[in-house]
This record gives sequence, C-alpha cells and structure tokens, in this order.
Amino acid sequence: MIWTIIGVSAATLTMLSFIPQIMRSYKSKHVKDLSPVMLFQLSLGVSLWIVYGLHRRDPIIIGANSVTLLTLLVLMTMYFKYGRTENKGDGPIFPKK
Amino acid sequence: MIWTIIGVSAATLTMLSFIPQIMRSYKSKHVKDLSPVMLFQLSLGVSLWIVYGLHRRDPIIIGANSVTLLTLLVLMTMYFKYGRTENKGDGPIFPKK
Repeated sequence: MIWTIIGVSAATLTMLSFIPQIMRSYKSKHVKDLSPVMLFQLSLGVSLWIVYGLHRRDPIIIGANSVTLLTLLVLMTMYFKYGRTENKGDGPIFPKK
Repeated sequence: MIWTIIGVSAATLTMLSFIPQIMRSYKSKHVKDLSPVMLFQLSLGVSLWIVYGLHRRDPIIIGANSVTLLTLLVLMTMYFKYGRTENKGDGPIFPKK
C-alpha cells in the first residue's frame, strides 16, 4: 500500500511537472530563458514512450506520457507565441558581458 | 528488437532532456523565465521514482531517474546562482504591460 502511494505520487508529480512552468510563462509572457531543444527533445521522448506503451498495452505508460505530451505542446505553443515578440527591445538572448 | 530500440530511445531522450536547458542557461546566465516550482516538483517526483525503483529492485528505474535527478540538481544550483543577480537592472520578473 505504501509503495503504491509512493509510485502514484512519483508518477503524478513528474507527469504534471510542466504545469507550474505553463503558469509562470503565461503570467510573465517571457520564455526566452527556456531551451526549445529541451522542449522538443522531451516531446519526442514522451511520444516514443506512448508508442512503446501502445506496444506493451500498458495504460499507465500511455496515460502518463499523453498528459505530459499535452502540457509540452501547450508550452511549445506559448514558447513560439511569446518568443516571437519578446526580444524587441529586451536585448539579445545571449547578452555580451 | 525494434521495440527495444524505441524503449531505449524514449528513456534516453527523456532522461537527458535537461542537458540542453543546462547548456542554454550556462551560456546565457539568465534563468528568470524558468519555474523553480517545476524544478522542485520534478526533483521530488524523480526522487520518489528512485525510492520506488529501489523497492522494486529495478535498475532501469533507479538509473534513469538518478541521471535526471543529477541534471536537475545542476540546473537548480544554476537557477539560484544566476537568479540571485540577474534582476539588477533587468526589470521585474513580471513586468507591467
């Protein structure tokens, strides 16, 4: 029982980990410190987890990674929406020292 | 064989997903758009995965989540190091419209 709680807590925390990032980016409208490579790499990774879960017919792998993929798609949409405009007057992404 | 490749690729991509973020933050020295709640929530989540993996004696769960935890600890250290100084003159984290 205790181990089930630990497993479910671990899965829930990691599955929903991008919700705080979505909330912060939504409030600040600033995303330039986020790595788009990280977002893309994670999306590709969890997509492959979903494919693997479908093969294994494992609803936990499919479900958890689908939720994460959904939050990553929201975050990537915000990245491109806010990132397109925010550097006008904010200086370069990699400022000189 | 193909399913093993898909599974290993999925695990590798997600396990190493914070490396691009570490590289970007290291280059730019800017972290204010990152959510510290996300970093903390993920660290707690993968820590519980490690505990769960130890209970299940599953070296894959233990190994993959240990690597992710290590990268998250590096990123959190950078967050506090760069975050402490970067807002001097850069404006507030949540600027007025």
